[in-house]
Amino acid sequence: MEHLKKLPFTAVEVCGGFWANRQKLNREATIWAVRDRFEDTGRFAALDFENVPGLHFFWDSDVAKWLESAAYIVAKTPDEALQAELDSAVDKIEAHQDPNGYYNIYHTVIEPDNRFKNRDHHELYCLGHLIEAAVAIFEATGSDKLIIVLDRYIDYVIDRFCVRGDTGFRTPGHEEIELALYKLNAVKPDEKYTKLAKFFLDHRHEDTLPADHWCNDKYYQSHLPVRRQHTAEGHSVRANYLYSGMADEAAAENDEEMFEACKALFDDMALKKAYVTGGMGSSHMGEAFTVAYDLPNDTAYAETCASIAAAMFANRMKDLDPDSKYADLVETEMYNGILSGVSLDGKSFFYENPLEINLSDHGRHVSVRGDDRLPITERKEVFDCSCCPPNLTRFIASIGDYMVSYDDERIFLHQYIDGEAVVNGALITLETAYPSSGLVHLNVAGGKGKTLYLRIPGWCERFTLNAPYEMKRGYAAVALTSDVVELELSFEMKVRFVTADPRVRHTAGKVAVAYGPLVYCAEGKDNAAMLWDLALDTKCEPDAVYADYFGAPEITLKAFAHDENDVRALYLPLKRDEKQKTVAVRLIPYYAFANRGASDMRVWFRYR
Amino acid sequence: MEHLKKLPFTAVEVCGGFWANRQKLNREATIWAVRDRFEDTGRFAALDFENVPGLHFFWDSDVAKWLESAAYIVAKTPDEALQAELDSAVDKIEAHQDPNGYYNIYHTVIEPDNRFKNRDHHELYCLGHLIEAAVAIFEATGSDKLIIVLDRYIDYVIDRFCVRGDTGFRTPGHEEIELALYKLNAVKPDEKYTKLAKFFLDHRHEDTLPADHWCNDKYYQSHLPVRRQHTAEGHSVRANYLYSGMADEAAAENDEEMFEACKALFDDMALKKAYVTGGMGSSHMGEAFTVAYDLPNDTAYAETCASIAAAMFANRMKDLDPDSKYADLVETEMYNGILSGVSLDGKSFFYENPLEINLSDHGRHVSVRGDDRLPITERKEVFDCSCCPPNLTRFIASIGDYMVSYDDERIFLHQYIDGEAVVNGALITLETAYPSSGLVHLNVAGGKGKTLYLRIPGWCERFTLNAPYEMKRGYAAVALTSDVVELELSFEMKVRFVTADPRVRHTAGKVAVAYGPLVYCAEGKDNAAMLWDLALDTKCEPDAVYADYFGAPEITLKAFAHDENDVRALYLPLKRDEKQKTVAVRLIPYYAFANRGASDMRVWFRYR
Repeated sequence: MEHLKKLPFTAVEVCGGFWANRQKLNREATIWAVRDRFEDTGRFAALDFENVPGLHFFWDSDVAKWLESAAYIVAKTPDEALQAELDSAVDKIEAHQDPNGYYNIYHTVIEPDNRFKNRDHHELYCLGHLIEAAVAIFEATGSDKLIIVLDRYIDYVIDRFCVRGDTGFRTPGHEEIELALYKLNAVKPDEKYTKLAKFFLDHRHEDTLPADHWCNDKYYQSHLPVRRQHTAEGHSVRANYLYSGMADEAAAENDEEMFEACKALFDDMALKKAYVTGGMGSSHMGEAFTVAYDLPNDTAYAETCASIAAAMFANRMKDLDPDSKYADLVETEMYNGILSGVSLDGKSFFYENPLEINLSDHGRHVSVRGDDRLPITERKEVFDCSCCPPNLTRFIASIGDYMVSYDDERIFLHQYIDGEAVVNGALITLETAYPSSGLVHLNVAGGKGKTLYLRIPGWCERFTLNAPYEMKRGYAAVALTSDVVELELSFEMKVRFVTADPRVRHTAGKVAVAYGPLVYCAEGKDNAAMLWDLALDTKCEPDAVYADYFGAPEITLKAFAHDENDVRALYLPLKRDEKQKTVAVRLIPYYAFANRGASDMRVWFRYR
Repeated sequence: MEHLKKLPFTAVEVCGGFWANRQKLNREATIWAVRDRFEDTGRFAALDFENVPGLHFFWDSDVAKWLESAAYIVAKTPDEALQAELDSAVDKIEAHQDPNGYYNIYHTVIEPDNRFKNRDHHELYCLGHLIEAAVAIFEATGSDKLIIVLDRYIDYVIDRFCVRGDTGFRTPGHEEIELALYKLNAVKPDEKYTKLAKFFLDHRHEDTLPADHWCNDKYYQSHLPVRRQHTAEGHSVRANYLYSGMADEAAAENDEEMFEACKALFDDMALKKAYVTGGMGSSHMGEAFTVAYDLPNDTAYAETCASIAAAMFANRMKDLDPDSKYADLVETEMYNGILSGVSLDGKSFFYENPLEINLSDHGRHVSVRGDDRLPITERKEVFDCSCCPPNLTRFIASIGDYMVSYDDERIFLHQYIDGEAVVNGALITLETAYPSSGLVHLNVAGGKGKTLYLRIPGWCERFTLNAPYEMKRGYAAVALTSDVVELELSFEMKVRFVTADPRVRHTAGKVAVAYGPLVYCAEGKDNAAMLWDLALDTKCEPDAVYADYFGAPEITLKAFAHDENDVRALYLPLKRDEKQKTVAVRLIPYYAFANRGASDMRVWFRYR
């Protein structure tokens, strides 16, 4: 196991290009859109411990993620209004903390007698998110007020779970607190934090379910001791939060057994259970992983939070096991499975991110009420369970977290974000229009004697670099031989056709279209033909032209299609020599689907 | 509208070949298997008006269809045991008839106060099947005892529905009685029967539902006056029984408006809503038709009864509108969608007939309880709603019904069944191994001066006939110029690849394999490769070799398949020049799937 150090986003300036635009939208539109909807739905009023209609035991976590996001934003762009929100919220949390340290709105206002009795009531999950918010506020503003509040709560948790052991369960139903405790320990080191995290990890398999429960122990990742878990199972968000905490533990304790488990979990997920967009979790039932290679497109669950959680896990693993496959997955999530979660105007959200929409499947039951269970076709401003919107705001605000890591000899550049990073005494300046362009200008000052590791994305078949390099597990390692090194790295950007493992039934005989890290889709809106009927002409020369509306190129290529007016019968003999008409197909980045109304949509196409 | 006359199966002898084998199995195994399961489940005990556990308001119809089947069998093959069953059942029905004429076990034993109050309680549907049984018994044995019993019941129905109008609904929730009344009128002509049938047809749209009901009026084919219904809607069995009654009415009343509706309904169904197997009804929700071209394979409902009902409707239409498309659909149903409903040993049944089974979709939810709603993968001996098994027994026993029709000048041969038919003074002898062979020997004695119409199946691209003929709407019309005419008709039998209308999303880019009227499928049992990965080599020369086990040829052809051991990643660049291995694929008749245990199964394949 290696131990690369994380370079936090606070040491990174996102200056221009793709992510600067996204952060601006996040800062100016999304953070407030989420806040307003949380206000409308009572989530902020609940901070006053009022019995707001609909008050739910996970509301604390929604607000906590919003606070964390706001802290990330003010850390970079001071904002009085946001700061006032943060201060007010922290004051209220402090004011309403139970004398014994406990804090949960629902379990104070509604069910005070049932604290820590129901494993599914997310109290520790909420605490985890509050801890992440507290750390973010501390890093953004230097205020440790919320950390102090939560430290008292953590003491109470330790007393109840580890000392007295009088709770109704031993480990959280929804993981999160483990990674949060390691994060807290990083800014306020205290062995009690890591011991509590380790307690929750070590005892996870001891919470088991009766056989007649609606789910089994896999749903909770409690089916085996965590170090013996080698396949990604159960609720996909919980799973990836757990795996993130496991990776943190592996690093903190130099726990090789845990590290091996993490590597196996990652490979199982990335090689057998991930959509081409990075989507995780093939079914709404349990919001869960199913079996290997089971990746249906139209019923894909692929929760936005699961993609964010998977990026968090992968981002930890890249520092323990510096192979480009981890940052490759992060990149896939960044540009596809996560980003599709938010609209281009920054104000509405997908919880589920399907890879195929057939509008005719909605309302096909013309004689009976009810519909098949399918993902919604347009983003919503808020959900009853609205975990994804504030997860998106924090992810985008802290995108710099994913860019660089390092140790004494090496600097790893994992993501190509236009910006500057101060890393271990060196200043890296990166200019790029990535992913619209594959050209990356790098200036590294003050890194002489170190080696710069540049990730060569897995999707990239050819690249040029104007310096000698050696490939090391997917990274081009360049010796920094002078005080200032100018590098030009160019990834060949072209429209690519991607196939899936033939064990994936739902993509058999099909290709997806990609451009750099971006996966593309066709929408009915742009294409007159029936999308399922299109057979892409993989010999054609596709056009990729930057489109301002999408913030990335759109693609035009040729496809073969039937003329439905030629059809005379429902079933006809195959005509092998049939001349099909060719049509131009417009493809847009997957993340931008469903921004212009409900539409048919498709990622995977037949081809010739 | 034309008015060809039906030649009942009683005038047809099935002598050998495919259907003689099927009738033998039906007579020796199936009829008794169904009886035994009906006995086990209390359906026969209920004839004594005992409160049997599970007693259901449609049990009368299950037993009635069994009695009808038994009558068809004894009409051809006297059988004391079956005859005793018939006599006993008729005696019991007579003994338990209400003094006012009413007869329904459930609504006498369990809910006597709720007679004719609930449109969904199938009393008139049960009466319809009892009438069909009574007619069959009369035709088989000459006994009109049950007809006399039911005539009293019909009088009571007329009094309640047409005279007093004091019932809770005006027309049956589940149609059937309409066609049954026309059938009764054919053997015991009485205007009151046809008037009652017409009453139910004419008033059908007047029974409407509240807006918040679980289904709407389309489910019951009550959304429009029947003569204005031009699209097949709602519960697929009910629909086709209704359409059969409508066709009967059109013929009886020379009702052109009804005839036009029937033609439109048939075309909508056959050209937009029928599976390649003849399966009808794309969804289990409402067991209903959905929208045009919506034909998912793995979730297909395609109820056996719906295929039987569609064959009944088509069989009526062929006599009003002598176009081969009607008998073509009957043929598709006979050899595929209906026949798949019964196992090769004759003892177990499918209610639903999917066109694709992926066993891995069963139990994919490894962390939660519950499964996706999918058809069962193996036949069962009896169902709670066991309408299909006795519908199969009556269909097979009366297969001769579908063979011939005629008028004074013409004899139509619709189905190629090895046998003899006496039709309007002529004796037709037909020798054939159809559908294993395309060769049909015909001898027509006593038909001089008439014209023999031989259906040229829609699937047949080439045929030879050793006599002059003129094509008329899909029939080869041969003038019978001498007292005895010997004909040799030969349909080119070869393995065919069939495509679907490109508007059918679920079959885009795929072919089905057929041989004569038989649709084929691959089972995982016979094929080592992943079925979804197979791309059939449509240039190969397939083998079709008769297999005794299936009673029809099995097919071997070549396909391209991936070698899963070659795969290195979940997503890879398309290799256009990739060399795929070729594998031999074994295909078996669709009707024979799932006879050797649960298995993956597939009808539609990619191809090259």
